[in-house]
Amino acid sequence: MSELRKDPIIDRWVIIATERSRRPSDFNSSENQPPTGAFCPFCPGNENRTPPEIAQWGRPAAAPPDSTGWSVRVVPNKFPVLQNEGDLNPQGLGMFDFMNGIGRHEVIIENTRHDWDFAGATPFEMREILGAYTSRLNELRRDERLRYIVIFRNSGTTAGATLAHPHSQVIALPIIPKQVKEQLDAAREYYERKSRCVFCDVLRQEMSMKDRIVETNEHFIVLSPFAARFPFELQIYPRRHSHDFTLMTEEEAAMLGETLERNLRRLKRTLNDPPYNFMLQTAPPQRPSPGRPESWGTIAYDYHWRIDILPRLTRVAGFEWGTGFYINPVSPEHATQLLQGADV
Amino acid sequence: MSELRKDPIIDRWVIIATERSRRPSDFNSSENQPPTGAFCPFCPGNENRTPPEIAQWGRPAAAPPDSTGWSVRVVPNKFPVLQNEGDLNPQGLGMFDFMNGIGRHEVIIENTRHDWDFAGATPFEMREILGAYTSRLNELRRDERLRYIVIFRNSGTTAGATLAHPHSQVIALPIIPKQVKEQLDAAREYYERKSRCVFCDVLRQEMSMKDRIVETNEHFIVLSPFAARFPFELQIYPRRHSHDFTLMTEEEAAMLGETLERNLRRLKRTLNDPPYNFMLQTAPPQRPSPGRPESWGTIAYDYHWRIDILPRLTRVAGFEWGTGFYINPVSPEHATQLLQGADV
Repeated sequence: MSELRKDPIIDRWVIIATERSRRPSDFNSSENQPPTGAFCPFCPGNENRTPPEIAQWGRPAAAPPDSTGWSVRVVPNKFPVLQNEGDLNPQGLGMFDFMNGIGRHEVIIENTRHDWDFAGATPFEMREILGAYTSRLNELRRDERLRYIVIFRNSGTTAGATLAHPHSQVIALPIIPKQVKEQLDAAREYYERKSRCVFCDVLRQEMSMKDRIVETNEHFIVLSPFAARFPFELQIYPRRHSHDFTLMTEEEAAMLGETLERNLRRLKRTLNDPPYNFMLQTAPPQRPSPGRPESWGTIAYDYHWRIDILPRLTRVAGFEWGTGFYINPVSPEHATQLLQGADV
Repeated sequence: MSELRKDPIIDRWVIIATERSRRPSDFNSSENQPPTGAFCPFCPGNENRTPPEIAQWGRPAAAPPDSTGWSVRVVPNKFPVLQNEGDLNPQGLGMFDFMNGIGRHEVIIENTRHDWDFAGATPFEMREILGAYTSRLNELRRDERLRYIVIFRNSGTTAGATLAHPHSQVIALPIIPKQVKEQLDAAREYYERKSRCVFCDVLRQEMSMKDRIVETNEHFIVLSPFAARFPFELQIYPRRHSHDFTLMTEEEAAMLGETLERNLRRLKRTLNDPPYNFMLQTAPPQRPSPGRPESWGTIAYDYHWRIDILPRLTRVAGFEWGTGFYINPVSPEHATQLLQGADV
């Protein structure tokens, strides 16, 4: 079983996922793109080559599971970094804190077509994928061992994708990650001081300054953040204050699908189909607090959900790893201009 | 001029270095290895193709600057992310904080030979390079605008190296980076509570557990940290408590050179010459506090300097960027065993 370990100096956890371990000779610095035409476990007809499915959309209820006929399909990751069965069993040993690698690791297969692209998806396809995100969040929130659920997408080998067939991933963690907790804490402190959402205030200022706003529509704002770590980094925020992605209305969800698709298309046209990561940042599930001092206890109403899109154009090097300080060679204002000019 | 910007939610700064800006067509996802045999500005004979040198070792004092005869040479980075001339001029605009991109960005050319390798360096060569590190730290600490100096090395294109000729880099910043400040704060809090160095306590426990100790010698401990973010991550700590790299004795510096070289050779043999980053983590310079509320004021005696070595074997993907939570597929205990077995 994998193990969660806390850094003895700072509050940063890592997953030591030894089930995924490789021999030293398996590491090399060249690209590991799977060959075109190789066997794909996510293509229709190969349903028996994934672990048994967790959910699917498109197939009639009467049809047998793990058969064809689906349009979106959720399966456990075959090489999960965390496993479902067992207890956390948190322990301390001198300076060290660790616990069992309990959690979930799922794959959302987004389309039957191996060569389908998120940029170019139909509104119906987008709606079904975002519906799958909501469904998995709602389901996994019921597991009381879990404290945070992250849904993300890696597109292109440079961005960490190891299978070419279009898919997103879900990882549910027994710990709120440091980087998320810092944002939750900052939002709470700001709210306690000002009785306003810090993200809403940033959005108001961005809307008045305009030079980092890529587009707006009735329900969403797309911008390149003021202190972007990476060139052409984008964020999609709901205009309406909301801490929780799953509370979107049908109308908002339809518009988010179109907004996300159109902005991935902007990046694709502007940057010649770059590798990218995107991830959904939403409030952690509510948890009862007894006996869990680190628990949030209440719902983080003062948070504001968003989607972060990070094109992978620059290499992260010693300076960034050593300091956490990032060098961005393209100002977000310049990136905004270029993205606005894309023919979408 | 580049600009330093603070994230409006959390305490993370970035450098928007637009002088380095590229057109969208300059970005692509393929490797950017400079062609073999291309012109190298760091090779002897091309001294006039770098900005005027800042320091050199090996050439007699009477010889003209920027001529051949050096063995280690320090020059300003031709495309600096921060510039030396000017005032910080820190400003606020609503939710946003920013200041001018003032600092230093230097290159330490480590050897005259283009194909020289750090792994395999002689004790004399190592001693001269580490001497250059000390010299630059001592020099840059005198600039009162600067709060933190990071010395790092990128080896291999995957690790961010853009020029093949062996070199380290120095970046001096007007702000203590968040990731460094967290460690300084943690060390201070621990010291105030226990009157002991937290790093010394971790080292004592690692020495008693033994399973992550790669090697020890009279003055240094080399280990793979308990909560390593990356496979085969290494740290080199001085056994003697010391917050400041520049306070090493001659004997310690000679032994550090041999220890660093030998462990880079371990990685090279075990992992087939992997790309890597290493960085020196040492206490920030002492600063007078008047008018600078964020100043440290006193020397961080409770810190413990070290060198971090990060082989770049895994890709960082959406999960890591979205959470700051890392997945390491090789346990540090297993990495330690493999590295101990290397024929060095």
